[in-house]
Amino acid sequence: MFPETCARARRATQKLAVASTEDKRAALRRCAAALGEHAERILAENARDVSDARARGTKDALVDRLTLDAKRLDAVARAVVAIAGQDDPVGEVIEDRSRPNGLRVRRVRVPLGVIGMIYEARPNVTAEAAALCFMAGNAVILRGGSDALRTNVAIAEAVRGALPEDVRDAVQLLADTSRDSVLQMARAEGAIDLLIPRGGEALIRFVTENARVPVVQHYKGVCHMFVDAGADVAMATRLAVDGKLSRPGVCNALECLLVDAADAARLLPPIARALLEGGCELRGCERTVALVPEAKPASPGDYGFEFLDRIVAVRVVDGLDGALEHVRRYGSGHTEAICTGDAARAERFRREVDAACVVVNASTRFHDGGELGLGAEIGIATSRLHWRGPMGLEALTTMKWIVDGEGQIRA
Amino acid sequence: MFPETCARARRATQKLAVASTEDKRAALRRCAAALGEHAERILAENARDVSDARARGTKDALVDRLTLDAKRLDAVARAVVAIAGQDDPVGEVIEDRSRPNGLRVRRVRVPLGVIGMIYEARPNVTAEAAALCFMAGNAVILRGGSDALRTNVAIAEAVRGALPEDVRDAVQLLADTSRDSVLQMARAEGAIDLLIPRGGEALIRFVTENARVPVVQHYKGVCHMFVDAGADVAMATRLAVDGKLSRPGVCNALECLLVDAADAARLLPPIARALLEGGCELRGCERTVALVPEAKPASPGDYGFEFLDRIVAVRVVDGLDGALEHVRRYGSGHTEAICTGDAARAERFRREVDAACVVVNASTRFHDGGELGLGAEIGIATSRLHWRGPMGLEALTTMKWIVDGEGQIRA
Repeated sequence: MFPETCARARRATQKLAVASTEDKRAALRRCAAALGEHAERILAENARDVSDARARGTKDALVDRLTLDAKRLDAVARAVVAIAGQDDPVGEVIEDRSRPNGLRVRRVRVPLGVIGMIYEARPNVTAEAAALCFMAGNAVILRGGSDALRTNVAIAEAVRGALPEDVRDAVQLLADTSRDSVLQMARAEGAIDLLIPRGGEALIRFVTENARVPVVQHYKGVCHMFVDAGADVAMATRLAVDGKLSRPGVCNALECLLVDAADAARLLPPIARALLEGGCELRGCERTVALVPEAKPASPGDYGFEFLDRIVAVRVVDGLDGALEHVRRYGSGHTEAICTGDAARAERFRREVDAACVVVNASTRFHDGGELGLGAEIGIATSRLHWRGPMGLEALTTMKWIVDGEGQIRA
Repeated sequence: MFPETCARARRATQKLAVASTEDKRAALRRCAAALGEHAERILAENARDVSDARARGTKDALVDRLTLDAKRLDAVARAVVAIAGQDDPVGEVIEDRSRPNGLRVRRVRVPLGVIGMIYEARPNVTAEAAALCFMAGNAVILRGGSDALRTNVAIAEAVRGALPEDVRDAVQLLADTSRDSVLQMARAEGAIDLLIPRGGEALIRFVTENARVPVVQHYKGVCHMFVDAGADVAMATRLAVDGKLSRPGVCNALECLLVDAADAARLLPPIARALLEGGCELRGCERTVALVPEAKPASPGDYGFEFLDRIVAVRVVDGLDGALEHVRRYGSGHTEAICTGDAARAERFRREVDAACVVVNASTRFHDGGELGLGAEIGIATSRLHWRGPMGLEALTTMKWIVDGEGQIRA
């Protein structure tokens, strides 16, 4: 049954890969409309999922992520319309050159093929991932979490019903939400071209360790901000508060603040005060605690830890070199920021920090597809190959070479 | 020991990632010179490898690939110099945009990190892969075949000795040439960022099935050429002869000729005659044998087979649709060509064929890094993710996002 799902997806990609931009857009707009038309059924199924989740004693935060209402469903439909309005990456010419022998050599973007998407509670992913994959000419096999199965089935049916028949199988949802289905996807060499697991670290590791197909990982964000000597204290405070408190539970939230020892006495107390006033707990090194008595002493495990909560680790470091060393050791390669007034140190930070996103004098929270101008994103890749950072439509394509001649031979 | 090798490689990348283009070039030119200075020792070690290989009864073709002489070694040194002369991809700005809130968002190329290279007999790969990885700012861990171990050790020592000490460990050769060393590399999650296995299909499958690190595959080339109705018969003949006979044993050699039934009586006999006169065996379908009595009847296994020899499978197909169907079923996604005078059918072939390289009116043999203008290549990727086709310096990089602000926050 699973091989048949993959085969149907592959056949759909053959049609979809050569579909026109306008046909893809029209299809996605019909999908968005269908979400509205099926709203009653989708919300009813969601209510059953939510009620079951509550009965199982699921945590409130998870229940909230699972819950749809008319407003949230409308936001999903609008996201699908927005994806339909983005530039089509397929067919884009990346490179076009002529060779001395007269050959014309082009490199053009083409769809990746069949994408496997493994995700957990949020049912909005079902429609948004389907729309992103479809717009980039790909088929997607969706494997959502068991908590949201009824909702996901209802959404997938609405979306599929709105697609033209010959490309309908470009969107398929697995009814099997067991670990077995994850293993089947991970081992579907030749049938799945890219696997995107989104969720807890344990899930991503499980997929990576079992995968024979390419995987793009979306691991955690242990995001730092280094406040350089001489930095504008008002700016540093604003960035720290926004980085942590605008939304503490997301991957681009600030988890650790580094402050240059040479200027910590001026910088750290006001930044700390603002964080504390925002309801944030601070866990600091000895030098931090000496300057900020309200800070708790940090344990070694607090560095490199993704709190996803109103907690910030703080460390006083010796200059930019100390900060770079800390980031190298504890960073997760997601987002690293500096607040500085010094152009040379900013440039060193940009060059020497190895992360998907390096931020100078702005909040770590900007590391996001929408904020960086990509439109919707299917996730933020922390792995290095193929793509890094927010994955929009372009990240869901590959390339092919096209060589045009007039009978040239090599011998 | 192997983890220590990886750790040393990682430390070297931290220096190399921020090295200037001129420093990298100068280092590589010293490496090329060192190959000349160490020629006596390298050739002596190679003579021992060759003599052992002969004593083991190794096939002539393999012994030839293993053998170095002064001229071949000089060619390797020149390849290293050529790589040093290429554009440095590191730091290249892929994208640069401003957001409405004033943020400047750039996407820039950065090195991939630590690359694992697994290869078989050819000792030239030792120097050339090292030079390509180094120029793109990466460390490489080389694991060559046991047949060439003495030669590879001598080459690696020459190269390493010419590198500045702080980046010397960017080039390391494993002394262990067992399967275990392949497994260690395949499982080095977090330590190796990309694994490139080059060699037989069995080796590549073994790596892929065991890999927890990203792998770019270089599978076989089952390359077709479709000769369209109305094609210039002289051009088609020239392309077929060049495709197969200019070098029958390589991955971009023509393995299967498809001819449109509507024009096969005109096209096939002269093309077949030229191939037969070149010493090529033809294995054809019934319609082929009816037109070319010298052709042997093809068995089903002859389609989709990589002969790497003076043998071509031939099939008369029903028009472009028949050709596309054959290529979809039997192609390996490496190189697919059409010979046609019809612009519309050429465009359909370009769009609908899913392969790393699609060729119109030229020889399949042009699918090669040098011929397509990349300079040297580390291989031709047949997998879809990250890169497809000839992998030059750009294919050995990844990206990072750089966000510059003036204190912007998101909330």
